[in-house]
Amino acid sequence: MSSPDQPVPFTADDYRARMERAAESAAEAGLAGVLVAPGPDLVHLTGYHPVNTERLTLLVLKAGQDPVLVVPTLEAPDAEGAVGSPALTLRDWTDGKDPYAVTAPLLDADGRFGISDNAWAMHLLGLQNFLPGTSYVSLTEALPMLRAVKDAAELERLAAAAAAADATYEEILKVRFSGRRETDVAADLAALLKQFGHSQVDFTVVGSGPNGANPHHEAGDRTIERGDMVVLDFGGLKHGYGSDTSRTVHVGEPSAEEQRVHDIVREAQEAGCRAVRPGVACQEIDRAARAVITEFGYGERFIHRTGHGIGVTTHEPPYMIEGEEQPLVPGMCFSVEPGIYLPGRFGVRIEDIVTVTEDSGRRLNTTARELAIVE
Amino acid sequence: MSSPDQPVPFTADDYRARMERAAESAAEAGLAGVLVAPGPDLVHLTGYHPVNTERLTLLVLKAGQDPVLVVPTLEAPDAEGAVGSPALTLRDWTDGKDPYAVTAPLLDADGRFGISDNAWAMHLLGLQNFLPGTSYVSLTEALPMLRAVKDAAELERLAAAAAAADATYEEILKVRFSGRRETDVAADLAALLKQFGHSQVDFTVVGSGPNGANPHHEAGDRTIERGDMVVLDFGGLKHGYGSDTSRTVHVGEPSAEEQRVHDIVREAQEAGCRAVRPGVACQEIDRAARAVITEFGYGERFIHRTGHGIGVTTHEPPYMIEGEEQPLVPGMCFSVEPGIYLPGRFGVRIEDIVTVTEDSGRRLNTTARELAIVE
Repeated sequence: MSSPDQPVPFTADDYRARMERAAESAAEAGLAGVLVAPGPDLVHLTGYHPVNTERLTLLVLKAGQDPVLVVPTLEAPDAEGAVGSPALTLRDWTDGKDPYAVTAPLLDADGRFGISDNAWAMHLLGLQNFLPGTSYVSLTEALPMLRAVKDAAELERLAAAAAAADATYEEILKVRFSGRRETDVAADLAALLKQFGHSQVDFTVVGSGPNGANPHHEAGDRTIERGDMVVLDFGGLKHGYGSDTSRTVHVGEPSAEEQRVHDIVREAQEAGCRAVRPGVACQEIDRAARAVITEFGYGERFIHRTGHGIGVTTHEPPYMIEGEEQPLVPGMCFSVEPGIYLPGRFGVRIEDIVTVTEDSGRRLNTTARELAIVE
Repeated sequence: MSSPDQPVPFTADDYRARMERAAESAAEAGLAGVLVAPGPDLVHLTGYHPVNTERLTLLVLKAGQDPVLVVPTLEAPDAEGAVGSPALTLRDWTDGKDPYAVTAPLLDADGRFGISDNAWAMHLLGLQNFLPGTSYVSLTEALPMLRAVKDAAELERLAAAAAAADATYEEILKVRFSGRRETDVAADLAALLKQFGHSQVDFTVVGSGPNGANPHHEAGDRTIERGDMVVLDFGGLKHGYGSDTSRTVHVGEPSAEEQRVHDIVREAQEAGCRAVRPGVACQEIDRAARAVITEFGYGERFIHRTGHGIGVTTHEPPYMIEGEEQPLVPGMCFSVEPGIYLPGRFGVRIEDIVTVTEDSGRRLNTTARELAIVE
């Protein structure tokens, strides 16, 4: 095992295995193949991360056929440099040529294909026009679990990202909150995430007092005061993999009600994490956490889903939400983050990333979940 | 006229006029309407620039009907804050609801719609599934000139962005090249663009020696040496509008061949610019520049199109490329940037932004195009 700051590099074989699994999953789902656009799907499957533009770049995966990456000729050298490129064949097209004519022979004329959610509409229309017999479905609908099960090398990176977020939390407990604006503490969080190795900060929520009651509040000009509850929710990417953790702290001593609401959320989060094991449906994690909050009479105040997957992005399938019957599989990683939001007063949220093990769940975030007192 | 650093703010009326023109253009092109996704189309038409995500945000424009912006409820407050929002109606949808069901009543069940190139495939598929009688065409195909003709306020911003890029070039001529890495000079370019008012740097190409022969090389670890040709190509956004200029410089005295290749590109670029006038097809600009390079025997070494439009993005229609028969119209702005690339040796590219006037073309970039000698 390598140190968190020097992860073992992914190899072409890692990407080959991921592409093979994706093609097999597509075949099992009754699809002729998978069409992957630049973005998180392509990063996950090939390690190649070009910008998503009007120039078609598209990975074509079909079971029993070598992966082919269609790329603009000008970008072929970059594509060849990607770690996963030995595991695929490049098919380049030059400006002025029709990229759909280059792609069409790789597809079945009457096949149904999964396509990356974020593929450009113009490219989908180009394929639909060139091959009118084909049909398409978004990957989130057809293969929502495409990136959901992480291999060992990915788990190592997610653990390292979580450790960096945890170190950030330990440090933020030492800074002054009262008398400073939310944006000041948010800037501290961002600086700490970078200091602990994040290359990208995706969000730094600091919801003090009544702002904490809006789960979509980021950080504003409000000056934090003694007596405030403060929701902290922060994360980003380290070595290409995501972190995301929440803790709620209190400036000075909490009231009995504040402590009680925090205790309820903590128990709900514990219940959600305890429910994690292979074979359990995603919605059961939501139900387990929600049951605790509902039991204590705050069911109406828990106004979002319980969790979301994490990987090369900080929000992705699987979702821990009522109606999601996908069973958990070892290697899946997702947040468990129940909350209670009291409009005009305060909010509480506690969040850890959890990975599914062979028999249960394991938290990647391990900082104390007790209500911390800050200055 | 305002100063370049304090452009006149766009108003809701500006956006109303642009949306009306877009709806009328769509009707003239036989379309039932235009569907606009987050990105440059939406910025241009409304001033609103949310992130393009899996949550549907879509502007629906139809001739003779008020514009409607479909937005996620959580993002409605941001949308209301956009400058163009008084000129449109918001229709919001909450998580868990079907955003296509919200959008469908705004469309004709059997209409043909133009849709932003960069709309997510998952959203296009959602609309196609919900309204099987509708059909779609990408805006670049259906209304390629939607954003191509700039109004006076936009031209003023493009001129200011070009002036800032020109100031950057003048300053970069004074820095040391030899003994420094390409990435060092690229960092200088980025800092200068920001110093001269850019809010966003899109690219800072520094292609020294053999790296200059790859037109898509950005900047690498190569140390620039005396005797190198160095392609510089840089730009970004200032006050929301793009800059993009290229010059090729030489470290110390050039060889006769280097000077000759540079002279040919300069003549080609001049020929391209001279060919600009209303009514001329875009491809004629490409042909005019290419003819010079071909005449001198380097036709095979000019491996990209001659130019691209510029506006709220640094690359957009119209494209100066063989096969593009769109006639030039006063107010269009685009690059003229021929090049010659000698693999393993060096490259040369010269690029200005040109705007179409009532009777010819006018360069927005005005720095010297002679081969500059740097240290």
